[in-house]
Amino acid sequence: MAVGKTVFPALAPLAGVRLGSTQAGIKQAGRRDLLIMELAPGSTVAGVFTRNAFCAAPVRVARGHLAGWDAAAGEPRYWLINTGNANAGTGQQGMDDARASCARLAELAQVSPNAVLPFSTGVIGEPLPMEALLDGLPDAFAALDAGTDAWRQGGDAILTTDTRPKGASRVINVDGQAVTVNGIAKGSGMIRPDMATMLAFVVTDAAMETSLLNRVLAETVERSFNRITVDSDTSTNDACMLAATGQGAAIVDGPMLEKFKQALLEVMLELAQAIVRDAEGATKFVTLQVEQASSSREALDVAFTVAHSPLVKTALYACDANWGRILAAIGRAPLAGFDVDRVAIDLDEVRIVEQGSRAQAYTETAGSAVMARDEITIRIQLGRGQAQACVWTSDLSHDYVSINADYRS
Amino acid sequence: MAVGKTVFPALAPLAGVRLGSTQAGIKQAGRRDLLIMELAPGSTVAGVFTRNAFCAAPVRVARGHLAGWDAAAGEPRYWLINTGNANAGTGQQGMDDARASCARLAELAQVSPNAVLPFSTGVIGEPLPMEALLDGLPDAFAALDAGTDAWRQGGDAILTTDTRPKGASRVINVDGQAVTVNGIAKGSGMIRPDMATMLAFVVTDAAMETSLLNRVLAETVERSFNRITVDSDTSTNDACMLAATGQGAAIVDGPMLEKFKQALLEVMLELAQAIVRDAEGATKFVTLQVEQASSSREALDVAFTVAHSPLVKTALYACDANWGRILAAIGRAPLAGFDVDRVAIDLDEVRIVEQGSRAQAYTETAGSAVMARDEITIRIQLGRGQAQACVWTSDLSHDYVSINADYRS
Repeated sequence: MAVGKTVFPALAPLAGVRLGSTQAGIKQAGRRDLLIMELAPGSTVAGVFTRNAFCAAPVRVARGHLAGWDAAAGEPRYWLINTGNANAGTGQQGMDDARASCARLAELAQVSPNAVLPFSTGVIGEPLPMEALLDGLPDAFAALDAGTDAWRQGGDAILTTDTRPKGASRVINVDGQAVTVNGIAKGSGMIRPDMATMLAFVVTDAAMETSLLNRVLAETVERSFNRITVDSDTSTNDACMLAATGQGAAIVDGPMLEKFKQALLEVMLELAQAIVRDAEGATKFVTLQVEQASSSREALDVAFTVAHSPLVKTALYACDANWGRILAAIGRAPLAGFDVDRVAIDLDEVRIVEQGSRAQAYTETAGSAVMARDEITIRIQLGRGQAQACVWTSDLSHDYVSINADYRS
Repeated sequence: MAVGKTVFPALAPLAGVRLGSTQAGIKQAGRRDLLIMELAPGSTVAGVFTRNAFCAAPVRVARGHLAGWDAAAGEPRYWLINTGNANAGTGQQGMDDARASCARLAELAQVSPNAVLPFSTGVIGEPLPMEALLDGLPDAFAALDAGTDAWRQGGDAILTTDTRPKGASRVINVDGQAVTVNGIAKGSGMIRPDMATMLAFVVTDAAMETSLLNRVLAETVERSFNRITVDSDTSTNDACMLAATGQGAAIVDGPMLEKFKQALLEVMLELAQAIVRDAEGATKFVTLQVEQASSSREALDVAFTVAHSPLVKTALYACDANWGRILAAIGRAPLAGFDVDRVAIDLDEVRIVEQGSRAQAYTETAGSAVMARDEITIRIQLGRGQAQACVWTSDLSHDYVSINADYRS
């Protein structure tokens, strides 16, 4: 199941990046499972990674290569991504395998091994099938291409339990020059990004200093991937990468940066929301809008507490306008001196709770009409201040249980 | 579904307490749904209540009556409990209804209204059906009895989605005199007690000062009801009450207190674990034993993070020894400077993870054999210190989703 629109947009070619993917037999027969993204020399690269202490070997290697980049001879020129195996919980063997994958691609591409950043997603705790992966690399390398099809195939090649590829694109005008931002992402379960998210790869043809790139990445991730949750479980393999190939206009601090950041945020948000729309077993796409909090932190705490409540999530699945469960979840959020009697809740345009009890004018008919929709906004006003925050989530369905009882992640 | 033994023990009569229940038509036809527990004059009473800011009218009223007791004329002589309706989110009407219920029972019993403590459990947000409740009170009052049947019927009369009543009893010898502790409880979903728990009513015939009673209640609740979780949702109506009727031996500070506390803890634990065994949709009863933590707080944080992970819970449901999900949950617990490479995990007698990776000697066959059991201990050693903590939980099944998609709580 998945909620809302299903079209993978036609991503326009973007100067300075090529994608090549193949069916290496890592995941299952007939599925693309190996992707190489090539960045032109001179590209700048920024990344944020999972904060899960149990992080996968490729995360450790990619973080190390990225951190050593400015000083080292090799620039980060290649992102090497496999699905079907997370290479997590694999000990020293996992580190060796991740490094050997980088070395093999570096050999094909005639670059230094630390110019390759590895990413893996899939089953935890199984050794990476190195023979299949190494055998697949020449095919993927030979397939490198800048075209729309290569982006679409790249979007396919990184999926796990996802039911559809996720891509987004924006074009802005910078001093008469078009600047493009393209991104692809994967993610469907084990989604509660903390510092980072599931795998997302975003590229622009703008020219940007690395320090600026890091800054805009951190700012936009905080407002997109760090605002979604499917099941409160933070992945071991999360990464969100951003590269600027430098083939187009230069973006520096100033008014133009705001315009660029807005476009980048839109791409990030579209990808992040696409992950929630395709959440494991999802039948609802839910926007939790918390307002009148005394701080953003407090608004986020309330939003995530409601978003993680299994009782709220099963009520959403049942199309049950169960405001009592929403209030109960709000009531256990970590707020000091919280007065529930000031709380108001709206489901889309229907006021359902006011002053901490059922709204006078509320009718079950009106509530049921809203709950029948695929996409619902739950607006919570706390009556404590001016801060607000927004979080996106899905419901908890029978299919979520089936998918995760059957799948060895 | 429910896990493990199903017998409601024969609770011996306990001097100074009588129970009376009836079918008042609050919940559904043919179900006991109204219970009165009567305490002898001179009893001492202690209670802990939900910390959910959205707490129900009866919780507010009971807390107020209990707090005012020492000063007021009326002692807390009656606990009045209905199931089928939580009287939560019901605003001023809810407060009025809770007080009117107390007043009616006080009139029948010829006591002051604040000698009655009200408790409700069931649907949130619907007005209490006062006519049925008030009409049922004389029947329940007339039924007051000290016998084993009255305890058993009382256990039945407080259930909601529970599939079976929950009772426990211990008898200790105090200076040649038998002292009894009897308790009943209800709870199956919306279970993540914070300060308190679902409804639990425990009585002893010992004589104890109120201050001492409060202390032992807080200590034993912290180690029993506050160590269980079904779905991380804290109820709006939780309460755990303890009364000492003073008909038996006096318990004062000293060696005898330790013996009493141990018996009380055993009753509390048996009731708390009975709630987890009867958790909504449960097919597994899971003990999470976290050891080698640098503090008890840290051990608890890890235990609850694992216990709340939907991915760990669905793996348990699937009998899948998915150690990667357990490690991933541990990895997102809020520990500073956490080194996953020191973690070891055992499933019952099988070592499954050592040094943060799959244990050398581990086989899927051994893991599957353990996971096929109904009751499993997951032992997690963090390699950080000497502290430990234990938490009990259940799995996440299709039936949990069905029960909560169908039930308007």
